[in-house]
Amino acid sequence: MDYRFSDAIANTPKSFIREILKLTQSDNIISFAGGLPNSALFPVDAIRHAAEHVLSRDGRNTLQYSTTEGHAPLRAWIAERYARHGMNVAPEQVLITNGSQQALDLLGKVFLNPGDAVALENPSYLGAIQAFRLFRPQFHSATLSTDGIDVAELQAVMRQHQCRFFYGIPNFQNPTGLSYSATTRQQLATMLQQEQQLMIEDDPYGALRFSGSSLPPVAALAPEQVVMLGSFSKVCAPGMRLGWMVAPAPVLAQLAVAKQAADLHSGYFSQRVLYQYLQDNNLDEHISQISHAYQQQQQAMVAALQQHLPPGIAHTTPEGGMFLWLTLPKHWSATDLFHIAVRHGVAFVPGEPFFADASQRHHLRMSYCTVDVATIHTGVQRLAAAMAEYAAQLPQHSKETQ
Amino acid sequence: MDYRFSDAIANTPKSFIREILKLTQSDNIISFAGGLPNSALFPVDAIRHAAEHVLSRDGRNTLQYSTTEGHAPLRAWIAERYARHGMNVAPEQVLITNGSQQALDLLGKVFLNPGDAVALENPSYLGAIQAFRLFRPQFHSATLSTDGIDVAELQAVMRQHQCRFFYGIPNFQNPTGLSYSATTRQQLATMLQQEQQLMIEDDPYGALRFSGSSLPPVAALAPEQVVMLGSFSKVCAPGMRLGWMVAPAPVLAQLAVAKQAADLHSGYFSQRVLYQYLQDNNLDEHISQISHAYQQQQQAMVAALQQHLPPGIAHTTPEGGMFLWLTLPKHWSATDLFHIAVRHGVAFVPGEPFFADASQRHHLRMSYCTVDVATIHTGVQRLAAAMAEYAAQLPQHSKETQ
Repeated sequence: MDYRFSDAIANTPKSFIREILKLTQSDNIISFAGGLPNSALFPVDAIRHAAEHVLSRDGRNTLQYSTTEGHAPLRAWIAERYARHGMNVAPEQVLITNGSQQALDLLGKVFLNPGDAVALENPSYLGAIQAFRLFRPQFHSATLSTDGIDVAELQAVMRQHQCRFFYGIPNFQNPTGLSYSATTRQQLATMLQQEQQLMIEDDPYGALRFSGSSLPPVAALAPEQVVMLGSFSKVCAPGMRLGWMVAPAPVLAQLAVAKQAADLHSGYFSQRVLYQYLQDNNLDEHISQISHAYQQQQQAMVAALQQHLPPGIAHTTPEGGMFLWLTLPKHWSATDLFHIAVRHGVAFVPGEPFFADASQRHHLRMSYCTVDVATIHTGVQRLAAAMAEYAAQLPQHSKETQ
Repeated sequence: MDYRFSDAIANTPKSFIREILKLTQSDNIISFAGGLPNSALFPVDAIRHAAEHVLSRDGRNTLQYSTTEGHAPLRAWIAERYARHGMNVAPEQVLITNGSQQALDLLGKVFLNPGDAVALENPSYLGAIQAFRLFRPQFHSATLSTDGIDVAELQAVMRQHQCRFFYGIPNFQNPTGLSYSATTRQQLATMLQQEQQLMIEDDPYGALRFSGSSLPPVAALAPEQVVMLGSFSKVCAPGMRLGWMVAPAPVLAQLAVAKQAADLHSGYFSQRVLYQYLQDNNLDEHISQISHAYQQQQQAMVAALQQHLPPGIAHTTPEGGMFLWLTLPKHWSATDLFHIAVRHGVAFVPGEPFFADASQRHHLRMSYCTVDVATIHTGVQRLAAAMAEYAAQLPQHSKETQ
């Protein structure tokens, strides 16, 4: 039979990362390509105890349908936690989602008509680009650099294209690891208030800071202008598929309508187990263990990059999070390099799909989270060898692809 | 700030059932309004053992990210189960979803452009109407009666409006409890094949049969024309939020793209626990316990209705599932009756929101699943008293509302 698909899905390409990861499944490949947290750091026993607790004491309710907005005590726990950023969040402003990814989908439903403009960082998070793309928007990007988003450029972009919102990740961005400075945050908040514009502030990595000092969310500076996203995936366990949104009340009401139509509510069993875990354990202590481990791994990767890579290749050195971003010589193609690297037994993610409009080919993303220190060194040596091979064949190769 | 919402969400009304259920939260009200399964029948201990098992033996993987399509052994288990209906389903045709509700959302994404026509049963499942409504379709209904959907009428409707698909629930439909006869299923399958049309066959209740004999899914008769939905919510536990779709391979590929953008994958922890439960227990034995209990409750409700209700009120007597459907005299309004019933201490769901286009006001839905036999009798007596009060005031009342 000839199936007729919607224009939205027919125009959505298969996930580039998903296709590329299929090439890296071999045991012989050291993969810096994943976006996974390190499962060795998951609080398995504590979650096992939490599951036992809720199922033995309140099993029937734990396994029943529940409310669309989420488990009320869990919403209150999340709201309370924002007090450390000086934010006054009511539990009613919190909606539990299936990780941050579902938040992006619900925001697309609630804000985007086909053809609407969306402002992004350049580059931006691939999963957000994919989620929004189903709503058929026009993407417009502003420059992201070591201080964060270029606010003046963003303001001009949002005015010119009448953007519905700006999507950004101020802490340890995926893919670059870059963060917004304190000044940038304040300028951005002021601009959003002046322009009466909306920001989606995605913050999956903010808690994973291992140096420098914590900076306020943009939401703390312009609460009416920001929908903030959070996730338990990177600080507890992604297999629970639990994240959240904090939104102004009128926005949250619409998000709840969309959430109900999408799946009634997020897994209540998982919410109950997670909340019990949070009651019985100190999440901050757990997070500091994760951060310490990632710091060791990042330092190992930075040392290896500086030791082994050829000159002319720059990298970010984030103060937290999960990713480094490498910038290759301008005429290099990270995708071409990728195929050589896989032959050398190492994988990364080429940067190209993270650019929604003005594409750049000479970047790549490296995750250090799931690879131990010794293996990081071996992997970077392999990467250096792949780069040497790539560089040696470059003139001939350039002719072929141009 | 003045938030600008999408046309789709701005045109989506708040859930009628959700608003009405707020009026029925009192302990003094006997509620036949819910759509919940009976939590006393949940296999709490078996799920507790399953959670302990997977977390103690493979905790790290259980809590990690997983694949978009779902846990491979769970997909294989589901595929294998269709063999009892003579269906040859490959595990690769199964996509795990957050209950059937998410399947409806993904199908909207994959098939519907704004303004596209969708064919429904009249009445249809409210949750499906809500999920599809976000994609801004035109709804067109065909008559549902004791033999099921009127296939000739449906064929004419689908031709006239060039419908993208027909959504139907052939077993113990929500809200009516009606099922399609064997003849209707065959006629429908033939029609779908002739017309090269698609059906979404939703089957959350099919396993909960307590009399009569099982009939083949339409998907067994026209596999290329049908996307089939299933759910663990009614046969195991809804708090896990796990359901599935079975689709022809080209459709499943697009659904997986939409699923990845929607939330990456369904809760892996829940999938692992559920699969372990299915390995260690006999689901069919568990289902027969549920069915037996629901049969007792339905029989009690039918007996009470026949004993207490005034003449001129008809009801369905389904061979399974969770719902009865009452048809009141034509000039009655179930919504007006509802407000009187709540004062009498009993609640149901007025039928009006289940009609997507040609609305009818004189029906109501009753669930018998969560109320014990003695309480069912008391509740139906209260309903009869409410009906008497409503009928007595009807002439005056009719004038007011017309």
